Amino acid sequence: MSVVDAWVVPRAKQPIVRQQIDLGPIGPEEVEVQVEYCGLCHSDLSMLHNEWGVATYPAVLGHEAIGTVVAVGEFAKGVQVGERVGVGWTASSCMHCRPCLSGDQHLCAQALPTIVKHRGGFASRVRSHWAWAIPLPEGLPAGEAGPLLCGGITVFNPLAMHAKPTHRVGIVGIGGLGHMGVKFAAAYGCEVTAFTSSESKFEEARSFGAHHVVATRDPAGLRKIAGSLDMLITTTNVPLDWNLMIGTLAPKGRLHVLGAVLEPIPVVAMSLIMQQRSISASPTGSPVDIATMLDFAARHNVTPTTEHMPMSQINEAFERLEAGKARYRIVLDADF
Amino acid sequence: MSVVDAWVVPRAKQPIVRQQIDLGPIGPEEVEVQVEYCGLCHSDLSMLHNEWGVATYPAVLGHEAIGTVVAVGEFAKGVQVGERVGVGWTASSCMHCRPCLSGDQHLCAQALPTIVKHRGGFASRVRSHWAWAIPLPEGLPAGEAGPLLCGGITVFNPLAMHAKPTHRVGIVGIGGLGHMGVKFAAAYGCEVTAFTSSESKFEEARSFGAHHVVATRDPAGLRKIAGSLDMLITTTNVPLDWNLMIGTLAPKGRLHVLGAVLEPIPVVAMSLIMQQRSISASPTGSPVDIATMLDFAARHNVTPTTEHMPMSQINEAFERLEAGKARYRIVLDADF
Repeated sequence: MSVVDAWVVPRAKQPIVRQQIDLGPIGPEEVEVQVEYCGLCHSDLSMLHNEWGVATYPAVLGHEAIGTVVAVGEFAKGVQVGERVGVGWTASSCMHCRPCLSGDQHLCAQALPTIVKHRGGFASRVRSHWAWAIPLPEGLPAGEAGPLLCGGITVFNPLAMHAKPTHRVGIVGIGGLGHMGVKFAAAYGCEVTAFTSSESKFEEARSFGAHHVVATRDPAGLRKIAGSLDMLITTTNVPLDWNLMIGTLAPKGRLHVLGAVLEPIPVVAMSLIMQQRSISASPTGSPVDIATMLDFAARHNVTPTTEHMPMSQINEAFERLEAGKARYRIVLDADF
Repeated sequence: MSVVDAWVVPRAKQPIVRQQIDLGPIGPEEVEVQVEYCGLCHSDLSMLHNEWGVATYPAVLGHEAIGTVVAVGEFAKGVQVGERVGVGWTASSCMHCRPCLSGDQHLCAQALPTIVKHRGGFASRVRSHWAWAIPLPEGLPAGEAGPLLCGGITVFNPLAMHAKPTHRVGIVGIGGLGHMGVKFAAAYGCEVTAFTSSESKFEEARSFGAHHVVATRDPAGLRKIAGSLDMLITTTNVPLDWNLMIGTLAPKGRLHVLGAVLEPIPVVAMSLIMQQRSISASPTGSPVDIATMLDFAARHNVTPTTEHMPMSQINEAFERLEAGKARYRIVLDADF
């Protein structure tokens, strides 16, 4: 018996209710974290509505949890009781397949998302495999670190894999992910162009570190920067003028797709071939990727721009996110 | 005055006729090559029919020329009179832009194709900028080297850029390009899967070095190898079942597009994101890329499978190529 307080989604699209749930005995490789903060990510909303058809109910959402380790299983390694950690999108991976043994644990076919068939971070306690409880570095404010665990690693990893500080990098979509992308790319030393369809965000994008701002829906503006970017990271899940977007890339430039846009992206082969351009994509990152990102964030003072709400206002928080009002990332403070 | 014999296309889709043409005075950075052999590439056929709308007439086609340097301009460097060289898709580049100075001369915006606004290799003599006349290494048979200068570098460069000998590599389309792709990938040390829609080529693909052969239009066969390939190189210009093709890629796998398919490739973002897959593409290669490929071909005895015809049968050769009868690359022997 291990009864904890949790905010539970009884069925798809239902109001979230506070309940006590039994997490059962702790697994031999698991750790248990007393939650202090948990970020609210757009994929929590997708799971609330079962948009991807993979949600399981009753569900405990929340996968950007920050807290202190209060228990560890018999064979848990690398983290100690009392340590402050973050738990992100992935709660566990098999640890023995080729991707896992190669350090790509986030690509494990058996990886378990924290909020699918697993109880997430909108609760007094959350569990994960020890490898997926990432110790927070000194100097990173715990209250602001949550969104780095999912959104942060998602936009940081493309830079870590492919960017150099000499690069011209574009970030499309200045929202929950994109605003962190601008901050990270600026801290990475790149020349940053923010793309947004919302004029109200132009100035704010500059305040995040963008050197240039371009209107996403302005063909003339896109043509003006044709052939100039080394890397263009898209964070939106709406169709773009893909030909014009690819056209902004320099020779050997790279479009990196993070936004899970449903309509297929129509890629004109010749627009890639002649300029030797490429398209890549990635989900989140491995435990080492996340730890590296947290170190970088601490060293460069990169934190998301957040709005804090008490976790007891979780339903209002989801409404605010769904209405597009979050500027830019909501963090729920545990108040059980 | 520098009058040479040439096979001239007077207008689009017209029979090719033998004429004398005046190349004019040699440029200060040019070299002039006495043509011995010139490969016939599918893009010569496209230019004969002006399929891409960029052809200029009267045209002298042919851009896989092998011959001996007979004259060099005042400021030509790196090649000597008497040296045997190859001239491929590109006849010159500006040599001072960023791509040129970075060693990516094939991505120069001013690069001049050998057969557009320039007289190509179906002639007794062809000229190029000195950097684009690539010396042939010892041991490479001159009569077989022509197709390496365009088709060869096109399929070799993706391997040189992205493959390791430990990789599983697929080659889609066993034609002029693809058959060289199979030979190169096998010599590169990879585990090679050939994809062809022609059952008559199954055995031949194995003889080129393929370890496995899969029918391109067989969904069951494609599903059977789902998630297995590190790299898949497409050489065909017809639409494929792109979802199934991308599905054959392992985590972090790469689709590399060489075939200039006209219909946009519909890329499902999630199929890239979740497995961290990518799509890349490339045209030919730089002078150093070509020299590296020729060295590799000589060392590993990689040559195209050719059919030789006298250059005076050029019209028959084009007909044979257009009818899809070439097995696998036609080389015209100069017989002026």
